[in-house]
Amino acid sequence: MAPRNLGKYQFYNVTVPSENVVHVEINRPQKLNAFFGPMWWELKDIFEKLSVDPETRCVLLSGAGDRAFTAGLDVEDAAKPDNAISAGGFADPSRKATVLRRHILELQEVISTVARCAKPVVALLHGYTYGLGIDLASACDIRFCAADTKFCVKEVDIGLAADVGTLSRLPKVAGGVTSWVKEVSLSARPFSAEEAEKNNLVSRVVAGGKAELIKEGLEFAKYLASKSPVAVQGTKNILDAAWGRTVEDNLNYTAVWNQAMLQSTDVQRAILSGLKKKTPTFEKL
Amino acid sequence: MAPRNLGKYQFYNVTVPSENVVHVEINRPQKLNAFFGPMWWELKDIFEKLSVDPETRCVLLSGAGDRAFTAGLDVEDAAKPDNAISAGGFADPSRKATVLRRHILELQEVISTVARCAKPVVALLHGYTYGLGIDLASACDIRFCAADTKFCVKEVDIGLAADVGTLSRLPKVAGGVTSWVKEVSLSARPFSAEEAEKNNLVSRVVAGGKAELIKEGLEFAKYLASKSPVAVQGTKNILDAAWGRTVEDNLNYTAVWNQAMLQSTDVQRAILSGLKKKTPTFEKL
Amino acid sequence: MAPRNLGKYQFYNVTVPSENVVHVEINRPQKLNAFFGPMWWELKDIFEKLSVDPETRCVLLSGAGDRAFTAGLDVEDAAKPDNAISAGGFADPSRKATVLRRHILELQEVISTVARCAKPVVALLHGYTYGLGIDLASACDIRFCAADTKFCVKEVDIGLAADVGTLSRLPKVAGGVTSWVKEVSLSARPFSAEEAEKNNLVSRVVAGGKAELIKEGLEFAKYLASKSPVAVQGTKNILDAAWGRTVEDNLNYTAVWNQAMLQSTDVQRAILSGLKKKTPTFEKL
Amino acid sequence: MAPRNLGKYQFYNVTVPSENVVHVEINRPQKLNAFFGPMWWELKDIFEKLSVDPETRCVLLSGAGDRAFTAGLDVEDAAKPDNAISAGGFADPSRKATVLRRHILELQEVISTVARCAKPVVALLHGYTYGLGIDLASACDIRFCAADTKFCVKEVDIGLAADVGTLSRLPKVAGGVTSWVKEVSLSARPFSAEEAEKNNLVSRVVAGGKAELIKEGLEFAKYLASKSPVAVQGTKNILDAAWGRTVEDNLNYTAVWNQAMLQSTDVQRAILSGLKKKTPTFEKL
Amino acid sequence: MAPRNLGKYQFYNVTVPSENVVHVEINRPQKLNAFFGPMWWELKDIFEKLSVDPETRCVLLSGAGDRAFTAGLDVEDAAKPDNAISAGGFADPSRKATVLRRHILELQEVISTVARCAKPVVALLHGYTYGLGIDLASACDIRFCAADTKFCVKEVDIGLAADVGTLSRLPKVAGGVTSWVKEVSLSARPFSAEEAEKNNLVSRVVAGGKAELIKEGLEFAKYLASKSPVAVQGTKNILDAAWGRTVEDNLNYTAVWNQAMLQSTDVQRAILSGLKKKTPTFEKL
Amino acid sequence: MAPRNLGKYQFYNVTVPSENVVHVEINRPQKLNAFFGPMWWELKDIFEKLSVDPETRCVLLSGAGDRAFTAGLDVEDAAKPDNAISAGGFADPSRKATVLRRHILELQEVISTVARCAKPVVALLHGYTYGLGIDLASACDIRFCAADTKFCVKEVDIGLAADVGTLSRLPKVAGGVTSWVKEVSLSARPFSAEEAEKNNLVSRVVAGGKAELIKEGLEFAKYLASKSPVAVQGTKNILDAAWGRTVEDNLNYTAVWNQAMLQSTDVQRAILSGLKKKTPTFEKL
Repeated sequence: MAPRNLGKYQFYNVTVPSENVVHVEINRPQKLNAFFGPMWWELKDIFEKLSVDPETRCVLLSGAGDRAFTAGLDVEDAAKPDNAISAGGFADPSRKATVLRRHILELQEVISTVARCAKPVVALLHGYTYGLGIDLASACDIRFCAADTKFCVKEVDIGLAADVGTLSRLPKVAGGVTSWVKEVSLSARPFSAEEAEKNNLVSRVVAGGKAELIKEGLEFAKYLASKSPVAVQGTKNILDAAWGRTVEDNLNYTAVWNQAMLQSTDVQRAILSGLKKKTPTFEKL
Repeated sequence: MAPRNLGKYQFYNVTVPSENVVHVEINRPQKLNAFFGPMWWELKDIFEKLSVDPETRCVLLSGAGDRAFTAGLDVEDAAKPDNAISAGGFADPSRKATVLRRHILELQEVISTVARCAKPVVALLHGYTYGLGIDLASACDIRFCAADTKFCVKEVDIGLAADVGTLSRLPKVAGGVTSWVKEVSLSARPFSAEEAEKNNLVSRVVAGGKAELIKEGLEFAKYLASKSPVAVQGTKNILDAAWGRTVEDNLNYTAVWNQAMLQSTDVQRAILSGLKKKTPTFEKL
Repeated sequence: MAPRNLGKYQFYNVTVPSENVVHVEINRPQKLNAFFGPMWWELKDIFEKLSVDPETRCVLLSGAGDRAFTAGLDVEDAAKPDNAISAGGFADPSRKATVLRRHILELQEVISTVARCAKPVVALLHGYTYGLGIDLASACDIRFCAADTKFCVKEVDIGLAADVGTLSRLPKVAGGVTSWVKEVSLSARPFSAEEAEKNNLVSRVVAGGKAELIKEGLEFAKYLASKSPVAVQGTKNILDAAWGRTVEDNLNYTAVWNQAMLQSTDVQRAILSGLKKKTPTFEKL
Repeated sequence: MAPRNLGKYQFYNVTVPSENVVHVEINRPQKLNAFFGPMWWELKDIFEKLSVDPETRCVLLSGAGDRAFTAGLDVEDAAKPDNAISAGGFADPSRKATVLRRHILELQEVISTVARCAKPVVALLHGYTYGLGIDLASACDIRFCAADTKFCVKEVDIGLAADVGTLSRLPKVAGGVTSWVKEVSLSARPFSAEEAEKNNLVSRVVAGGKAELIKEGLEFAKYLASKSPVAVQGTKNILDAAWGRTVEDNLNYTAVWNQAMLQSTDVQRAILSGLKKKTPTFEKL
Repeated sequence: MAPRNLGKYQFYNVTVPSENVVHVEINRPQKLNAFFGPMWWELKDIFEKLSVDPETRCVLLSGAGDRAFTAGLDVEDAAKPDNAISAGGFADPSRKATVLRRHILELQEVISTVARCAKPVVALLHGYTYGLGIDLASACDIRFCAADTKFCVKEVDIGLAADVGTLSRLPKVAGGVTSWVKEVSLSARPFSAEEAEKNNLVSRVVAGGKAELIKEGLEFAKYLASKSPVAVQGTKNILDAAWGRTVEDNLNYTAVWNQAMLQSTDVQRAILSGLKKKTPTFEKL
Repeated sequence: MAPRNLGKYQFYNVTVPSENVVHVEINRPQKLNAFFGPMWWELKDIFEKLSVDPETRCVLLSGAGDRAFTAGLDVEDAAKPDNAISAGGFADPSRKATVLRRHILELQEVISTVARCAKPVVALLHGYTYGLGIDLASACDIRFCAADTKFCVKEVDIGLAADVGTLSRLPKVAGGVTSWVKEVSLSARPFSAEEAEKNNLVSRVVAGGKAELIKEGLEFAKYLASKSPVAVQGTKNILDAAWGRTVEDNLNYTAVWNQAMLQSTDVQRAILSGLKKKTPTFEKL
């Protein structure tokens, strides 16, 4: 079943495996789901729509095929002379710089669309999760991975500092600018699922392969989708606001947020259902 | 022995189990120490007094009875028609919002009084530590728990985003907005003592039950109380100031703090005692 | 082989164990490498030079002798009546305060020189790593330690709040103001290598003794030195900028940084070498 | 007419000169309204109550007598040996420091209660407006003054940096840390009403004496009180949140604020009244 | 002459009155250029294109007709039952709140597109400049006005706090949260061109009427367009980054920006032309 | 009379015109006091020494000769092929960028040394005050100018964004990112003393020429030097900390600062002298 408000996409399979749960699958398996031009704009379009789609309460993001969540940037494509990275047509370094900056800001904006999605996004990682795969996973709210996942902050290996999100979000999701964050970011040393879990990048390593991962991810998504969407989406919004701000600032923000949200019928429904030991249902949001 | 400057409280036992150590016990065990109206104002009063009480060097916070640190908000009380959460008497949503916001800010202020207490506060958690229990524990400096503790960021289950501190302080105390912080906050999934320790919420899981927990907590409190209070309270103040600020900002703040505090007699006493392998004593603060 | 641009130092051995790798060894083993007056200014001088030395791509920092990285401040020296800490010559507390503040700011500036070094700095810790040893290690990018390392945020034991960096940088490198960070900082309780690794202070505990530690550190340094220096140094700069700032702020900073750096020949060299499965070489930086 | 919810005060006259307008008059004219001990706590109590009093929409703050808004701290009182400023009873400078800091934070909290008052506060200044008078005026939202007002950031003249708010709020209300702000703050040079207006400290200099000032202030207060209280109080809250934050941050805060407040009946009432050229009335808040 | 890359717009006249200068005229004079639905999206489209159009170096923004820059929101349109402000179709206040918040964020984004335009934007204000007119003008870089301009932060008069930018940007452009900013924002009192200039909202009041204003604006735009676009656009970017950040932060940002931009050929061209007293020409950007 | 702790400088005259007042005169009048290489390092050295010199309570900064405070960067020198701005010796744009950034950071550091000087610095401006002259003046605390001063944020005219401080400090000292700040910064339009005063850049325009300016500056410096140095230097420190921080943050910082400084003998001396109408004297600082 396809979600009501979403069209067809060339590089993504978008399905509704369960009520209020949307599954977005990166679909270029013959290239290890590596990213090039048109894939970016489709991704942005999908998440802009899901963010405001009232039927969607939880989003799963995974990669098609057995081998990779995504191997990252399609380096062969990036090496072509007409790629944006070569800032073709300008000799003056300051004008070249301007073209490059505009391009980076555009790509960052795509990843930020995932991060800003009002609904919780769960990344299900397996196989190669390299470079851009880390940028993308860090922009999700929750990360589970299969035991065989191979991680790498790969950018240093292609001569650049990761610039579409990893360096800004990895310290946030892995817990500070720790020795480990710097070790793997500065060296581009690959690391395992176990190491990812130990360092807070994923909260679960699912035993078995990709099938088990998808199954466990879907179970969790159904669980989330059964909760009050006002409560879940508010919780995400406030947690994201907390980063890089003082506690006092965020307490005030929380109070201002909840002055509207506590008027929700969800509160009465949830409390009453709790007292009566029944399962509440909630209106769409 | 009761502390000199503290009165009697209806819902808290306040005792002095060892010199300069104060033990605050939430005391409504028949209701799993769940919170309702008057309990808030007593808590605020206790911590405002302890913060400036010169005899107090370390505070322990625990729950009475075998079953819970606290089960959180007393939902039955919250469901009553005259509870503040219903913002009774107003039809206009903006006026209702104002009443709710004032109420949230008041409750936040209670929890913040614990967080701002100038003396280190050690939470000793056991049994149910649900909802408000996490808000409260996150506002303490150090958390130990018994092996049987059952944790839950419960608020989503009553249709709301946690608003008296958890969402602002949990990322601070658990280390970033990690996948795990979002997993348990968005889903209201309960978690164990082991999981709490793995994710930095507690720094010790004490083997055995509540008795062992209280014993180990008291040992630690005595150890803290034997140190220079100028040094301990300064360390707490500066660590709390560090969150959400740049390193440079906090370095300068530290220098400004210590320009007064290094003039302390504690420094000479501590250094001399150290050189002479003797135990120093310090004036009250 | 001595680095080209560095002179001789009384309290440090500075060597070049491998191309583009510099090893700085604190060299006062008879005093457990404890710090006093002149050692500070030499350290500042070394790191200011390494930061801009085009031949240096990675710095290792360790302590001479078998017993300690450093035992911290030389307390006997600090106890002398003419030590800066006594702010001699002033009776008025505000003037004493000003002298002390100037002194603290100077020492902080030394440690910050290590933190600001444009090249990655790897701390190799063994034996006593007490007080100032934690300040210093926290200012490095990556920390490995030997299994026998004994850590202690010692300052509270000498009557003061750690003021040359630990309280500002430990929450950053260990992941938040966690229960554990407060437990060890408030109590000055010593902790083991295992505990340091569990709490993100070090990313590797090397089995065996100091020799194995130095060997593994050197291996890692060579690996880092083989990567694009434009990419490695940019990654460090951006990760450090991320702390205490919002994600949006840092994304924009990253784009502005890379508008210059993506014009590097390193990018083409790295991508081409990758496609051809060859090892790239990079110009000095 | 006295406001319903306010008691009697020894050092303040609190009256209701017009519907929804409260006038707070500092009343110790024989001492030029200079502040000492009990006056602080009364002021705090008054503004805490007005902040949540539903009948109050605008507050005027002025000084009794012809000679002064307030001459500032009562220096004779401060010079008494038992005054808090002498931190009596402690010899150790760090303990003296702690007592002083607690005292300053308490006094700052009084002034901040004025600044945090949810209703707009208009300061009406005349005669001596020295030291604490500037702290107090800066914490108000709007400042009018009589032509004869004599201003002075007096603190430097009593050997201290202004510490209950001027140095934090004057740059905010006068527009930056300008040359003028530093000139008058560093030198304690008195300045005139004209200079205060030119440098944005007051927005009106009322021709004539105190009587004309009070009259014009009351006119303005009536005007404010006729507007939607949801709109006025929201505008104050958001403007105050804007200071020291980025534009993006504050835009988001504004949207979160207004998601509740736009549901107000005030919006429909105001728009409809506007279209029909009638005067709207609004419920209390 | 129409700009190359811009289409036709229903509610804006977009022309190129001089080389590299684009003039955007709000064109709904029969309704005093009041805003309703489709006008927002056209405005966004225009400024997104101008921001990256290499031929554009300066943008002028004015209102068609003799009577108004813009009278603000079209209140009659807002009063229609199907307007977004009524959040139709939802009874639950929390869902209504979500719809309203999404709507406000969309409108803020339109105004922010003007603020983020990489090229300098000069607002030329005349006649009614009410409500949204202030939001829009505050998002421009520079403001000139005709002597007859009538300003008003009108929102309080329609029962709401200004929420698409005024409250976030007015303190930035008028210099702090001054008494005057609060006076006009809280009261919705209209103010004159003279008062706007005195309080830094405009930097020039042009004598005469609209014709003289447009003429002087165009002169200034030509002057700006003759300067190095690398220098002008860099200056705008850095000045905007300065707001709400520390000086140290912004100094570092400036250095990172200029590490690319100082490599511009504009620098050599400008310096050489300066030494030779000739007029430089610059490549497009 | 020369200050005790200062050596001789090639490009600056450093004198002590009155007790505790130091006058620094930029001394390269034949080149309109334009800056090139060695002048930077001397300036840094002077202000580092004055900042901690206990005899210095106020610093005056002016330019030698009748024609200029400083005309800014020596453009002829900058145009030389071996100037740092050409980043000679590197072809790779990223390496060139690194050299340029290091150079900018070094020059910023010089200007920041003036801004960080613990003693108040009063700039006395006359004649050409162009480019770097604005950077330098903005880093001073207080600015007076002669009626003939010609100001210009000149950098855009040499193809670059001002990068050693103007763009970070001008919004702070002129009051926000006002229309005027952008007008003169984006256009490099020269402006008069009158305009500088109107827009808060200077707090006094002294009638007459340079002689009158120096005289009035010296009067003011003597006045400042007669005040408590503890109070004056504390006021400067706290005002500078206020920029870009929240009011709450700065209030706390103020309390921490004054917990040491209120213990000063200056407070008693000042209060007592005030009560007795005598002139107090203060110890050096």
